[in-house]
Amino acid sequence: MAQFKAGILGATGAVGQKFIRLLQDHPWFTISALGASGRSAGKPYSEAANWIESTPMPESVNQMEVRNCTSSEFGDVDFVFSGLDSTVATEIEGEFAIAGIPVISNAKNYRTDPTVPLLVPEVNPDHIELIKTQKFSADGSGWIATNPNCVAIPLTMSLKPLYDAFGIHSVVVTSLQAISGAGYPGVPSLDILGNVIPYIGGEEPKISAEPLKLLGKLENGQVQHAAFPVQATALRVPVINGHLIAVNVKLNEKPSNISKVSELMRSWKSPIADLGLPSAPAFPLHIYEDERYPQPRLHADNENGMQTAIGRIRGGDVMDVSYIAMAHNTIRGAAGGAILNAELLVKKGFLKV
Amino acid sequence: MAQFKAGILGATGAVGQKFIRLLQDHPWFTISALGASGRSAGKPYSEAANWIESTPMPESVNQMEVRNCTSSEFGDVDFVFSGLDSTVATEIEGEFAIAGIPVISNAKNYRTDPTVPLLVPEVNPDHIELIKTQKFSADGSGWIATNPNCVAIPLTMSLKPLYDAFGIHSVVVTSLQAISGAGYPGVPSLDILGNVIPYIGGEEPKISAEPLKLLGKLENGQVQHAAFPVQATALRVPVINGHLIAVNVKLNEKPSNISKVSELMRSWKSPIADLGLPSAPAFPLHIYEDERYPQPRLHADNENGMQTAIGRIRGGDVMDVSYIAMAHNTIRGAAGGAILNAELLVKKGFLKV
Amino acid sequence: MAQFKAGILGATGAVGQKFIRLLQDHPWFTISALGASGRSAGKPYSEAANWIESTPMPESVNQMEVRNCTSSEFGDVDFVFSGLDSTVATEIEGEFAIAGIPVISNAKNYRTDPTVPLLVPEVNPDHIELIKTQKFSADGSGWIATNPNCVAIPLTMSLKPLYDAFGIHSVVVTSLQAISGAGYPGVPSLDILGNVIPYIGGEEPKISAEPLKLLGKLENGQVQHAAFPVQATALRVPVINGHLIAVNVKLNEKPSNISKVSELMRSWKSPIADLGLPSAPAFPLHIYEDERYPQPRLHADNENGMQTAIGRIRGGDVMDVSYIAMAHNTIRGAAGGAILNAELLVKKGFLKV
Amino acid sequence: MAQFKAGILGATGAVGQKFIRLLQDHPWFTISALGASGRSAGKPYSEAANWIESTPMPESVNQMEVRNCTSSEFGDVDFVFSGLDSTVATEIEGEFAIAGIPVISNAKNYRTDPTVPLLVPEVNPDHIELIKTQKFSADGSGWIATNPNCVAIPLTMSLKPLYDAFGIHSVVVTSLQAISGAGYPGVPSLDILGNVIPYIGGEEPKISAEPLKLLGKLENGQVQHAAFPVQATALRVPVINGHLIAVNVKLNEKPSNISKVSELMRSWKSPIADLGLPSAPAFPLHIYEDERYPQPRLHADNENGMQTAIGRIRGGDVMDVSYIAMAHNTIRGAAGGAILNAELLVKKGFLKV
Repeated sequence: MAQFKAGILGATGAVGQKFIRLLQDHPWFTISALGASGRSAGKPYSEAANWIESTPMPESVNQMEVRNCTSSEFGDVDFVFSGLDSTVATEIEGEFAIAGIPVISNAKNYRTDPTVPLLVPEVNPDHIELIKTQKFSADGSGWIATNPNCVAIPLTMSLKPLYDAFGIHSVVVTSLQAISGAGYPGVPSLDILGNVIPYIGGEEPKISAEPLKLLGKLENGQVQHAAFPVQATALRVPVINGHLIAVNVKLNEKPSNISKVSELMRSWKSPIADLGLPSAPAFPLHIYEDERYPQPRLHADNENGMQTAIGRIRGGDVMDVSYIAMAHNTIRGAAGGAILNAELLVKKGFLKV
Repeated sequence: MAQFKAGILGATGAVGQKFIRLLQDHPWFTISALGASGRSAGKPYSEAANWIESTPMPESVNQMEVRNCTSSEFGDVDFVFSGLDSTVATEIEGEFAIAGIPVISNAKNYRTDPTVPLLVPEVNPDHIELIKTQKFSADGSGWIATNPNCVAIPLTMSLKPLYDAFGIHSVVVTSLQAISGAGYPGVPSLDILGNVIPYIGGEEPKISAEPLKLLGKLENGQVQHAAFPVQATALRVPVINGHLIAVNVKLNEKPSNISKVSELMRSWKSPIADLGLPSAPAFPLHIYEDERYPQPRLHADNENGMQTAIGRIRGGDVMDVSYIAMAHNTIRGAAGGAILNAELLVKKGFLKV
Repeated sequence: MAQFKAGILGATGAVGQKFIRLLQDHPWFTISALGASGRSAGKPYSEAANWIESTPMPESVNQMEVRNCTSSEFGDVDFVFSGLDSTVATEIEGEFAIAGIPVISNAKNYRTDPTVPLLVPEVNPDHIELIKTQKFSADGSGWIATNPNCVAIPLTMSLKPLYDAFGIHSVVVTSLQAISGAGYPGVPSLDILGNVIPYIGGEEPKISAEPLKLLGKLENGQVQHAAFPVQATALRVPVINGHLIAVNVKLNEKPSNISKVSELMRSWKSPIADLGLPSAPAFPLHIYEDERYPQPRLHADNENGMQTAIGRIRGGDVMDVSYIAMAHNTIRGAAGGAILNAELLVKKGFLKV
Repeated sequence: MAQFKAGILGATGAVGQKFIRLLQDHPWFTISALGASGRSAGKPYSEAANWIESTPMPESVNQMEVRNCTSSEFGDVDFVFSGLDSTVATEIEGEFAIAGIPVISNAKNYRTDPTVPLLVPEVNPDHIELIKTQKFSADGSGWIATNPNCVAIPLTMSLKPLYDAFGIHSVVVTSLQAISGAGYPGVPSLDILGNVIPYIGGEEPKISAEPLKLLGKLENGQVQHAAFPVQATALRVPVINGHLIAVNVKLNEKPSNISKVSELMRSWKSPIADLGLPSAPAFPLHIYEDERYPQPRLHADNENGMQTAIGRIRGGDVMDVSYIAMAHNTIRGAAGGAILNAELLVKKGFLKV
């Protein structure tokens, strides 16, 4: 397959660095441009970035000159990944799309735009069609696709089989979120070492809203959101990578017994399973029998960090089903999710060399 | 007040050590006997115990000879505290009660016995009357009183004002439990450092059941348990002390607005507030406005570890009310709770010199 | 004793907050003024400070208006404590001293000034006389006294008995330093959780130099520094409070056997032991026999955080003596050390109401 | 190359599990037998072992029946790796060697035996010849080779270039050791979370002694140990993997300037660099310029955990050179080191199919 030339916006931040690391040996995508703030522009990347990944900075970006995040400096790319901060993403991503450059974004800014797909390839690949309704560029060459919040991803991936089989009445979820989700420098060690912080700003509304768009039905070029309440409590815990969620679900139709639920999850097949996308996990959901699992430190890296691990499926007296889900928040839940989106967009012909 | 001579059963374990530390300068109780397994019996305490408290072992117990846990060796005490392991508590505590020695126990074994009070003085001080129905000793001089599980305590303390004012329909709770709850050596560091373990053996059934007895009504010498389902997920987190719980409550009668709930909790007055019990916290519930609070590392020691801290009270679309509660698991949730029980039992005339 | 009115410079920072907490119930000193940067000046303290201490902000400072750090706004104090950042301490502390206001500083800026005492009351109380040589104010009413770096304190306190008895030839020391030493927000959690950082900027030169001034002899109004090399490696570890140091010492005169060293340390008596200073620990040095001790989490709070704990005293083939020392870095090693200095300065008549 | 059939003694322990994981896709060695205590013997491995590795248990061992650790049950292997506990290793390893089965051991028991090579292939590959002096089996077919303690390995690897170029006068070293070094369950979390333990039983004598044998010269079939004192302090820190050591070295011949030392280390070439051993790291020593490095969490997995990372090389006034070294304690420092030993033994003809 021809190589795509990808730019990265917000390349010096934590998400941008993760994009660089994950794209290092990607079979389809080559990093050909790095964008950051004016403070970094003009410098070699090795000087502009405070590299926090544990593997060394790839040689290929080491001496690459950082550019300003403006479309005029990205004329040589086929598309861009965006790891931009939400304070600037609306303007910059919009400017790129208007200029005819597709944007695969991890930022939250356009997630709620009704013309922008909020995409988890295993959940709602058909939502990709929304792109055709976008008006950023006259010829449709520029557009935006987004991936959800890092908790919404494992939550929705695990709810999907239940939603399709039984319908969902309501969800109560508590998330135990890793410190890497706050970027760098992020959470001060004095706040979190040996501690739990019972609040993460802006997180709970996203956890409540995004699954509804993801599980929505595309009808006449519009997404009809799913309609059930999600009550969320978001907590920070001293874990490096991997958001773990304790999920309680009330179903519209109650399964005859709880083993039906685990069988359903275990046998669930992703709609993109046969597309040959390089970053797609062989098993998007893994169901543990051992009640001590999943654990963030042991399992966040499963399938290169792209799997949602599930355990402790059991019934309950208030909600019908309780279970634990866990996924790598900066891979599956951020940069890796965006890369998988880009791969689907290639396969479906939305991205072209 | 005359001094009571207290024995401690299970004195070398983690709970036993906490009893020793908390009783060190107690105005009413003096430690006069220490009991442990046959392996320790006959040794001076300083040799038998692997002392894990951060303050030094009190001089008063240093050279005390450890006894076997049999009533015949405890003839000189007024009552005993029990920090016994559940594998031996049924037999030993029963034997002491039969022999006429009152047992104030932290073990789970007799908590479900309908004649044994499961007691949180601020919640159900009247349940103390159950003692009169016990048949351990012919003359009633020997009996057992218990305190609840370390999660059930802050859960029930925080539910109590809601239960009385609105009635409770159902509860969904996720607990983030400190490692000290597993005793010593307890949780291996390789399992929990930078990690979350999504399972604690035997914990969830206790969290579901104990609040119902605690909130039950004493009628004709029997406790009519409260009747609502509690769906619990118990998780272990890398925190030293302080169990934090994310609570979601559906009420029977919905409050006109959520501020009623926080006002109710804030103005709630404990029924034992005026009894002058030495270990009773001035404020059994503390409500934080700052949404970053409560935190285990910062607030578990509030009011000598006897307070239940509450925060983030807010409404929801699935359950009516969500909030965070947190209490010190080995003080309020174990040894300190048992000592407060003993103080109430003194005040009410059940314990006598 | 008459109450002294104390101001605090840098009151909103981590050291400033520790001053406030430690002075809360001080028998001699009352906080009467708080100074911080222009950004905070004019605000009530509760608004200006992001309070990070685990105990609640004292009522007495809650509504106190923060002032600019200029002497003209501190006319009503008897002296000031300084927790100022080193970037501004030279100018501000100098300005206060010139204006006739004594400064008891924790900042490093004046520590090397030959007229300024670098003071650990148990080690070199006589150095206090240096103050008389200062020229800040014409009438000598304004002056500066400093306390050493947080590693230099336990290092020097533990070396003092050896220095006096045997003479010191050389020292090799590795420090394992707590995160609270970096202030707030300080060390990012992503850097230190489950990790060690092998470098702390600017730390090693202070560890090498300050013990020599502390152990120096005051002669003719000047300190003749001790003369031995100290080779230091400063490491950051995921500990909240308590710097632990592994010390290796070569002596000028070798003790006949290693037990002489521990006897010496154990029997050492501080020159200020009988002065009745409120913050002075009853035992400035505590020697543990148990080779598992001292540990930062268990022992940093010993004697209200003012003790230096020592353990594992043993001989060696390269250096004569190896041992472990540990002290609370923000109490003994910072704010608490400065308060003890102030108490000595009161007792010796340098501070007056 | 023909496949070697390898047995693993102590297969259910932490080191045994690491052997299994590292051998999973080994090009030369196939696991064909697993040995453990009588308690495990007869069970399938999946049942006998409490698997603590983060990657799943390999299919190949899942159903393998665990055997007793006796040579009569290992007739079908070419050699065994031993991860046995030191309490049983002397007897069992000896019995295997006597029975003609070569033992590549990680246990400490035979390390000091003058006929047994203590081997780090990059340091003293020629010591392998000691095997020929062993008398375990009449025909020499059974023998024992060992790898050193997990701290001695990075210490000696980093000292080797200095020893050869300048000679070593003395060493003072402090080790900060990861919890995985204590096996499983190992260090209780209550002991180490947010803490440092200043003692590791039996560790310091090994750190002092083993480098001297490793750097010794083989003469007339005997190793003449190097002769310099190593004064060690071994500390436990809350790190999962990776022992970090702060090393201070006095040299016999002082380098003209410190940059000579880092050049020497950087340009050092391992004597086995060209042998094509599958587990040999491309760069056994990596020298970081960035003074924040190396860090255990970021760099322990470098080169599949087989590299010794070095940083902060600098001069000193007491010892000539100070630096930081770090290596993965259970890979380079244990199972991985043993596998590299086996590879060298294959290449040199000591192991045969």
